[in-house]
Amino acid sequence: MLAEKTKNKFIVDLERIIGKAAVLHSVEDIYSYANDSNCKISNQEKPMAIVLPSTIEEVQSIVKYCYEKEIPIVARGAGTNHVGGCVAKEGGIIIHFSRMNKILEISRKNLTAKVQPGVVVGDVQSAVERKGLFYPPDPSNLKVSTIGGALALSSGGPRGLKYGTAKDYVLNLKVVLSDGSLITTGSDCSKSVTGYNLTQLFIGSEGTLGIIVEATLKLIPKPKTSKILLAYFDTIEDASCAVNTVLEAGIVPSVIDLLDKFTLQTIEDFRPSGLITNKEAMLFIELDGDESAIAQCEADILKLLSNAQFQVVQTKAQAEVFWTARRASFAATSKLKGNVITEDVVVPRTKIPVLIKEIKKINEKYSLTACIMGHAGDGNIHPNYALDFDDEDEMNRFYLAKDELFKVAVNLGGTLSGEHGIGFEKAKYLSFAVDKNVIKISKQIKQIFDPKNILNPGKLFIE
Amino acid sequence: MLAEKTKNKFIVDLERIIGKAAVLHSVEDIYSYANDSNCKISNQEKPMAIVLPSTIEEVQSIVKYCYEKEIPIVARGAGTNHVGGCVAKEGGIIIHFSRMNKILEISRKNLTAKVQPGVVVGDVQSAVERKGLFYPPDPSNLKVSTIGGALALSSGGPRGLKYGTAKDYVLNLKVVLSDGSLITTGSDCSKSVTGYNLTQLFIGSEGTLGIIVEATLKLIPKPKTSKILLAYFDTIEDASCAVNTVLEAGIVPSVIDLLDKFTLQTIEDFRPSGLITNKEAMLFIELDGDESAIAQCEADILKLLSNAQFQVVQTKAQAEVFWTARRASFAATSKLKGNVITEDVVVPRTKIPVLIKEIKKINEKYSLTACIMGHAGDGNIHPNYALDFDDEDEMNRFYLAKDELFKVAVNLGGTLSGEHGIGFEKAKYLSFAVDKNVIKISKQIKQIFDPKNILNPGKLFIE
Repeated sequence: MLAEKTKNKFIVDLERIIGKAAVLHSVEDIYSYANDSNCKISNQEKPMAIVLPSTIEEVQSIVKYCYEKEIPIVARGAGTNHVGGCVAKEGGIIIHFSRMNKILEISRKNLTAKVQPGVVVGDVQSAVERKGLFYPPDPSNLKVSTIGGALALSSGGPRGLKYGTAKDYVLNLKVVLSDGSLITTGSDCSKSVTGYNLTQLFIGSEGTLGIIVEATLKLIPKPKTSKILLAYFDTIEDASCAVNTVLEAGIVPSVIDLLDKFTLQTIEDFRPSGLITNKEAMLFIELDGDESAIAQCEADILKLLSNAQFQVVQTKAQAEVFWTARRASFAATSKLKGNVITEDVVVPRTKIPVLIKEIKKINEKYSLTACIMGHAGDGNIHPNYALDFDDEDEMNRFYLAKDELFKVAVNLGGTLSGEHGIGFEKAKYLSFAVDKNVIKISKQIKQIFDPKNILNPGKLFIE
Repeated sequence: MLAEKTKNKFIVDLERIIGKAAVLHSVEDIYSYANDSNCKISNQEKPMAIVLPSTIEEVQSIVKYCYEKEIPIVARGAGTNHVGGCVAKEGGIIIHFSRMNKILEISRKNLTAKVQPGVVVGDVQSAVERKGLFYPPDPSNLKVSTIGGALALSSGGPRGLKYGTAKDYVLNLKVVLSDGSLITTGSDCSKSVTGYNLTQLFIGSEGTLGIIVEATLKLIPKPKTSKILLAYFDTIEDASCAVNTVLEAGIVPSVIDLLDKFTLQTIEDFRPSGLITNKEAMLFIELDGDESAIAQCEADILKLLSNAQFQVVQTKAQAEVFWTARRASFAATSKLKGNVITEDVVVPRTKIPVLIKEIKKINEKYSLTACIMGHAGDGNIHPNYALDFDDEDEMNRFYLAKDELFKVAVNLGGTLSGEHGIGFEKAKYLSFAVDKNVIKISKQIKQIFDPKNILNPGKLFIE
């Protein structure tokens, strides 16, 4: 922490650079921007100020200043991160993108959208869908989370299996580097093979290599319609096998999420939606495309999964109810004990039943309560832990469980994160899953982009 | 070139490392591996030897030796590159992967395939399709080109629009670095957000950062069936607009390639296949998926494109004839004057008509003959130049035309390559299309991976 006098000078400098109204530094503001969505575990230093730039040039000026003074910078959108990625671990400033939240252009002809980093993912989706286009990446928090964060964290969502994730829908980026200079990666073309893929180097780099200030997104035509089938099974194994049965029949649902019994019960208690709650597992299947193709796939699935009990959603309103229920798992879990921490592990999809069995074993060992759900098609499982952050003993048990969880996932050939990233919460586990030479090279790359280590310091790597 | 004595010592060393039978160095061998598929323009130094490793360990030993002696290394598959990417521009050795050409594993359950770099792309496709799976990337030379090269060059193909390209179907890589050490990037999971995406840094890096010695490919279920519609138009503009009409109707064909009249005539002269040759342009449209969905899309397209004359392909045999015709454009063009050079530019797809008009203008100015075709859905156009390599004047006119071609593409908001890469042929144009700071950073990244500049030197960047 800087001494009070230096701090005041610092605030004055920031205000000089982008105007008084764009610099927040009251205690209330500092606390408001201190945490991410997993509050308890962000026991970090607070930011000294939050700046709200309106233009790329303002971002550049702020970054240039911080570069000279060696002040840490954390880029932040809606703060929905789960691993401490957007908290000011080592103090410094938060650049908050609430004023750079425009969709600059949507081109139906070129199937692209140019957006600022602060635009909400769901708003991009709605805007392009109104033009008959489609931006598939759909993190469950899409109604609040922003594109800048979604790209910096390479976020995913239920549609990952069929459509891929944020990384698959970006053509180019404008990025402010640590010295305040601006670069443009990639091109506006849907294909570009012209040297190293710096676009993808920034995607998932969690703000440690540069600050994304504009992105050109790749869009696709909007699927004509969609339909939800809820398939309930007597065992997790049955549900997991069903995923492969569907895929092996050549059917790729737009969504094939798995929710365990306790998740179904918790959601239903939180917001009754008509889910069946006495089955061990449910597959939330969404088919999209042409009506005739959907009808064919639906018929095939009903026949293929003869061991399942189905709820076939017939109306748009009912679909909306079930989607809201599906997305409510995080909020619903938080009601159990007051708080929730969502974890995020991935395994090759055949290992899902073993993974879930192991998670349940760990949770039993440490007396923890978790709703287990995830994107079964991707092998990406989220145990959502219901916790009481004031219960120190429970929190300690949780941390021990977490250590075991990642070991189990990696031992099954899996990895630490499918869509939430590493932040500082998982930094200590990185060497479990990532080749030590890859970590070494990554640190050298970081050194090129950020020689003064001012961009989101303390994230990804621990020294 | 090394002195004869040093050279002999060098050959003896290589033979000691991987055995006499795995080192080629006769004049005939040297010439056989000296060029890529655009022969004339590879007027480069020859390799001193070609080594044929059978294992990753052998690759490592060879690379370690070259690292110590500072000998250039070029990794090479089938040598089908069009930009000099796989030729030994600065001498040294070629590591040829003909002995590392196995499919190591195909997992139906995890939808993955582990492959060695020397396996032919088409062989991967056939092998996975026999198991009901699908590897979409389909460079036109897929019957000879290899996976290692396809990944190193981030190659594409007609299916790019719907399915993406090589970069979109790789989960992880084993890579031998310039000092002979081995790293593994990514994971076997379909999603992995655990730090910088080094996998994508190697894809498209053209062998300048490391040597890909194994890859885990992502597969998808095989589409049930497919159908070809050939749509002929009176003008290039009509054909180009038709692409958007189809996409805007929410239809995403698996292929939507454009061939101009001269290309159709040239192919038909080379191998009569029943193509219509008196129309200005043809769209080669392939639909894939469910039979009912295809029928619906077909009906929609026939209705939407009322200004087109259609050939609807009814049998598998006929589809094969047309696919062979479509892929013959390169070979057919080479028959016109004895040689062919294929170029590769990309523009935002709305700019295709202007681009083609400009290409024709340039070709007229320099009295050049070219078949113009490409992946219209991606804005990726290939003018295939019919040339006589012995006609010095024509070749000079070609080089001047080439300079203009890239300027035009970049001025239209496009770029230098959609799928062929930069190699050394396009290195001098890189700064037309790529941000100078991006080039600077790329060189710094190269320095991390290859401090002695032994990995495919003289490619991508010119100093």
